[in-house]
Amino acid sequence: MSADSSRANSFAEDTLLAHIYSTVTGSEHVLVGPGDDMAMISVGNQQLLAAKDFLVEGRHFLPTASMAQIGRKAVTRNISDVAAMAAKPVAILAACVLPRSISQTQAQELVNAISQTAAHFGAPLIGGDTCVHVANGPLTISVTVLAQPLEGVKPILRSGAHAGDQLFVTGALGGSLQKDGGGHHFTFEPRLAECHALARLLGSNVHAMMDLSDGLARDGARFAQASALQAVIIAEQLPCTPACVQAHTQVNAWRGALGDGEDYELLFAVAAGVQVPATIGPNNTPITRIGLLQALPSPNDIALVCLHNHQSVDVSKLGHWHDSI
Amino acid sequence: MSADSSRANSFAEDTLLAHIYSTVTGSEHVLVGPGDDMAMISVGNQQLLAAKDFLVEGRHFLPTASMAQIGRKAVTRNISDVAAMAAKPVAILAACVLPRSISQTQAQELVNAISQTAAHFGAPLIGGDTCVHVANGPLTISVTVLAQPLEGVKPILRSGAHAGDQLFVTGALGGSLQKDGGGHHFTFEPRLAECHALARLLGSNVHAMMDLSDGLARDGARFAQASALQAVIIAEQLPCTPACVQAHTQVNAWRGALGDGEDYELLFAVAAGVQVPATIGPNNTPITRIGLLQALPSPNDIALVCLHNHQSVDVSKLGHWHDSI
Repeated sequence: MSADSSRANSFAEDTLLAHIYSTVTGSEHVLVGPGDDMAMISVGNQQLLAAKDFLVEGRHFLPTASMAQIGRKAVTRNISDVAAMAAKPVAILAACVLPRSISQTQAQELVNAISQTAAHFGAPLIGGDTCVHVANGPLTISVTVLAQPLEGVKPILRSGAHAGDQLFVTGALGGSLQKDGGGHHFTFEPRLAECHALARLLGSNVHAMMDLSDGLARDGARFAQASALQAVIIAEQLPCTPACVQAHTQVNAWRGALGDGEDYELLFAVAAGVQVPATIGPNNTPITRIGLLQALPSPNDIALVCLHNHQSVDVSKLGHWHDSI
Repeated sequence: MSADSSRANSFAEDTLLAHIYSTVTGSEHVLVGPGDDMAMISVGNQQLLAAKDFLVEGRHFLPTASMAQIGRKAVTRNISDVAAMAAKPVAILAACVLPRSISQTQAQELVNAISQTAAHFGAPLIGGDTCVHVANGPLTISVTVLAQPLEGVKPILRSGAHAGDQLFVTGALGGSLQKDGGGHHFTFEPRLAECHALARLLGSNVHAMMDLSDGLARDGARFAQASALQAVIIAEQLPCTPACVQAHTQVNAWRGALGDGEDYELLFAVAAGVQVPATIGPNNTPITRIGLLQALPSPNDIALVCLHNHQSVDVSKLGHWHDSI
């Protein structure tokens, strides 16, 4: 379960999430509850993973986006959660609240994009719901993705990291959402092939994994918190996209890599001393070591430290990109 | 997959649904695809059912509703889909888009209601998503429910009816949504115990089942269409709630029973000649025979005929209650 942030809002969403986690009742069928990229339940002798994400006009895309872009992103955003567990997508459900102004053609384009993207990832659209706003309201899509563990691969949780683990990301970060609303966030390929290759290559030495959507500064802190550790990120080691460099300048690109969000890259922790290849998967996706995880110096210490020029810099205000559109 | 209707809207949602069904790609894992109350997939050697519904401010509840009412209904609406398959709920996921004006207390009340209602039905909240509208926007909740077949009971589809089947409903219909926005739609008990008792008592003689949310006139037509049959409803036999009689008068209550919607009662088809009890389940819920299913007189004939005083009356415009709030 995840929450988008909003500085202007009167309540703290992380507080709401903490409340959600506290209200959840246990069950013998629930193997992984709220707080990870996907939940996992037992279904008879099988394991099933499930996650759901919203895509809301104004927050996750601008009104100028095409239905093809919106429908694709609604699905890929969820497939990225499957990648973060090193699992295998099996089906999706999609629910859409449509603005009153939408045309039949647009609605069908949206459905086509959802259905085709889902099929592309081996997760056919099996159900859902549609309705139309009574008054004005934004196009809102909720996708639920169902997944199963990859054969021979135990799903990788957020919470399995150890002190001393090496911290890596796939691909490059920042600049995914351009000022005009376009960019990589509409075209990214969820890192399914990469996570499967990593899990097969490194096995249980991959201790923890998540996908990055709210920016490394924010998600990295959550990642460390899930294992009650502290992440130490070396700003100079962050891989930045050309779009990130262009938006922030070469000197400040590291800030974009930490704060921009919408990367849908994988952040993962590997046991100390284990050799990790420089690229992975059929497209030779780069893997970059960006820091490490260490024991919290004190119980109330911050969960993420960023070192720039060997100095700790406060990045706790980064990672709230959603306000910017 | 279902769609709420909206007369004022520029496109036909049933056309959109037909398009959705046509775009869906088959898969060996998909046992029941879009078009039933729940989809069903195979997970290894197990069967898993899944459905998702929206609850949108203005369309499914008024702004005057309490968070406890909204959260409960978001869940019970989905549990009703599980009842319609005679299945057993196992988990839910919930995603909420919150209005900017919501307070921390309200958000927590909403979460509490969702979580407690889910737990009550044996389906713990295992995950989801929250975000806040960037501009003004209605409170929007999407719940996904996961279910498994009840031991020894094959899930009951919409599409299994035969010509000559008797048509029944549980409980009483109409008046669920009062003019002030309150009413039975906030307090109904999904007919889980009833469908389980029916399935155990009548076995495979229950040929088809669905839950009623858009009004019997509309849902009954869909029900008949799913088996390529024609439903014949006898207006005088319709069980009407006291609220329905009050809202429509005794003489016209049958129109409310056909058109009001939000009943969350079960509509089901039983093989001709099979004896069905007058009540079912631990609360002795009434069961009423309201008509039958017959072969379509011609391929393009209407799917639902309503007889009132032995005359066929046009009820095709009923069942669009969602416009009324």
